[in-house]
Amino acid sequence: MAEVAVLGAGYMGSAITFPLCENGHGVRLWGTWLDDGLIEAAREGAHPRLQKPLPRQLQLYDSIALEQALKGTDFIIIAVTSEGFLPVFERLLETLDRPLPLFTLTKGFVELGDEVLRVSEGATRLFKERFTTHDLQWASVGGPVKAVELSDKIPTATVFGYTGPEVAAFFSTFPTSYYRVSATRDVRGVELSSALKNVYAIGMGICDGIHKRAGVEYYHNFKAFIFNQAIREMALLIGEGRGERETVFDLAGVGDLYVTSASGRNGIFGRKVGAGGVPEEEYRRMLDADEVAEGYHTLQLLMKYIGRVGEGILEQLPLLSAIKRTVLGGENPRDELLRFAENCCSAG
Amino acid sequence: MAEVAVLGAGYMGSAITFPLCENGHGVRLWGTWLDDGLIEAAREGAHPRLQKPLPRQLQLYDSIALEQALKGTDFIIIAVTSEGFLPVFERLLETLDRPLPLFTLTKGFVELGDEVLRVSEGATRLFKERFTTHDLQWASVGGPVKAVELSDKIPTATVFGYTGPEVAAFFSTFPTSYYRVSATRDVRGVELSSALKNVYAIGMGICDGIHKRAGVEYYHNFKAFIFNQAIREMALLIGEGRGERETVFDLAGVGDLYVTSASGRNGIFGRKVGAGGVPEEEYRRMLDADEVAEGYHTLQLLMKYIGRVGEGILEQLPLLSAIKRTVLGGENPRDELLRFAENCCSAG
Repeated sequence: MAEVAVLGAGYMGSAITFPLCENGHGVRLWGTWLDDGLIEAAREGAHPRLQKPLPRQLQLYDSIALEQALKGTDFIIIAVTSEGFLPVFERLLETLDRPLPLFTLTKGFVELGDEVLRVSEGATRLFKERFTTHDLQWASVGGPVKAVELSDKIPTATVFGYTGPEVAAFFSTFPTSYYRVSATRDVRGVELSSALKNVYAIGMGICDGIHKRAGVEYYHNFKAFIFNQAIREMALLIGEGRGERETVFDLAGVGDLYVTSASGRNGIFGRKVGAGGVPEEEYRRMLDADEVAEGYHTLQLLMKYIGRVGEGILEQLPLLSAIKRTVLGGENPRDELLRFAENCCSAG
Repeated sequence: MAEVAVLGAGYMGSAITFPLCENGHGVRLWGTWLDDGLIEAAREGAHPRLQKPLPRQLQLYDSIALEQALKGTDFIIIAVTSEGFLPVFERLLETLDRPLPLFTLTKGFVELGDEVLRVSEGATRLFKERFTTHDLQWASVGGPVKAVELSDKIPTATVFGYTGPEVAAFFSTFPTSYYRVSATRDVRGVELSSALKNVYAIGMGICDGIHKRAGVEYYHNFKAFIFNQAIREMALLIGEGRGERETVFDLAGVGDLYVTSASGRNGIFGRKVGAGGVPEEEYRRMLDADEVAEGYHTLQLLMKYIGRVGEGILEQLPLLSAIKRTVLGGENPRDELLRFAENCCSAG
């Protein structure tokens, strides 16, 4: 068993410590400068997000104690939001005295300079500046994992897209009876699926919001239509990004979109927008309550990312276009979603 | 526009008349010998299943009037359950004076002699006995279509797997703004997906039932795990049945499993079993209330169908095995589902 440092003490960073501790790893949980309150509360009793005590053998580190948290670790798990990734990663690189295998639970894009990149693209660039002679040993998470449920030991399946043999050696030390871990070499497919599902979950939420507002109770056909179209469009985008389509049709795509649209902050954000809320205001309001609808930020970055492929591809992505016009363009959600449906999937 | 006879006046047969009538087809709805009460009620007012009046221009035919219903029709839509398919199809062949293009909305397997066949396999054999010099022109439905919602004009996407140019000519006359119709030549993939999703939806329901019974409210991770595994196993089975895996990853598989597990009789049946009900009793009780959980019958036939491929394949289908042992073998649902999860999806 290994010494593991988990960076980020929010939902996911805290939850992953449960299977890791159960497997006998020495686990340290480091809170970022935004997490000091969480670490402090977890020392005294329940973790405020997970609403339960963290594993007893876990060691907790305040944001000022990164160096101590990293001392003697074998690998590192980064568990911050996509907006928080780069600042934490830069801090990590400054502090690390040697290259270590890195796992990330972050789902989204990062913005380096004025370029939008997959998380591992951004990380690789920064890593190469710091450790010029080493290749980054890396794994990006995918799959349907609600943090609270993982900490409740609800059966959970996840997938890591990875590169490098050192990382692969650690996978066999992750699974428990309730935390099932598979792996693929398709880092691109996993990362893009993980980012995109947050955007499409907003679309599912918008569908809920417009029907709730209209008092319509049964619209499963429409939800399934949108779910299916989301998978189609994700497969197209991942193909364009030179990932593997099969990755979308498995845990990182189908599985994660399922869980995210059934229960998650992006769906809630979408519902508010679908019910008539102003997107930016709703996003801010959730943020003020410590609830980050990451898909909103990811959607903004996705539009820049798509610029790399060519804006013309949006014509093949009618659902994404409807979500974009609604969430970023302020168009009427009902009109946009109905127009999407009326122009999609016809043999005629 | 064409003259269309729809055979079967239950949920789906009645619902499909809405877009057909809207498109200006001349539509006749024939009720089977089990549907006379439905036809009678629909003549007087609301259709008892859809709980609304059928389109005004629709012509209704009692079971004794099949010959009149078929007179001058251009194509036929068969909309009965898989258990009802063969008796209705035999009656149709006896009555037809010429071969016509056939669409079926039936999802499941049929049993001809002691052989379990896809619906179109069974239909082809019988058709060839009757019209020896003609090839069957055929389309099988797939995709997420709850009948009541279709009749409510909720946006709905469907896919037909078809063979033959005469059938293809009719597709362009099906879509409306809310009923979106796509087509594929992969009849096998569509038929197998449509049958299998009813079986796997039982598995999703079992998961609900065991957690409800245990008072556990949040288990989205497990549901997503099962949903994803269902798609994996459907893709495997469809590959074995020489269908196309891509068909599973679209409306006939992903889309339909989504809607069926969100809302449907197979999910309800699964929930009762998961909560501790005796499968056969629960099936009978639903049947007495005119609610057919088709997946129960399909599961029984699927086990025979799998015999064609070789029982050994069950080792690669751990979720199906758990459903089978629970529903047909009377094993404990919780034990079976947890054992499935503990042994699935691990890189370790």
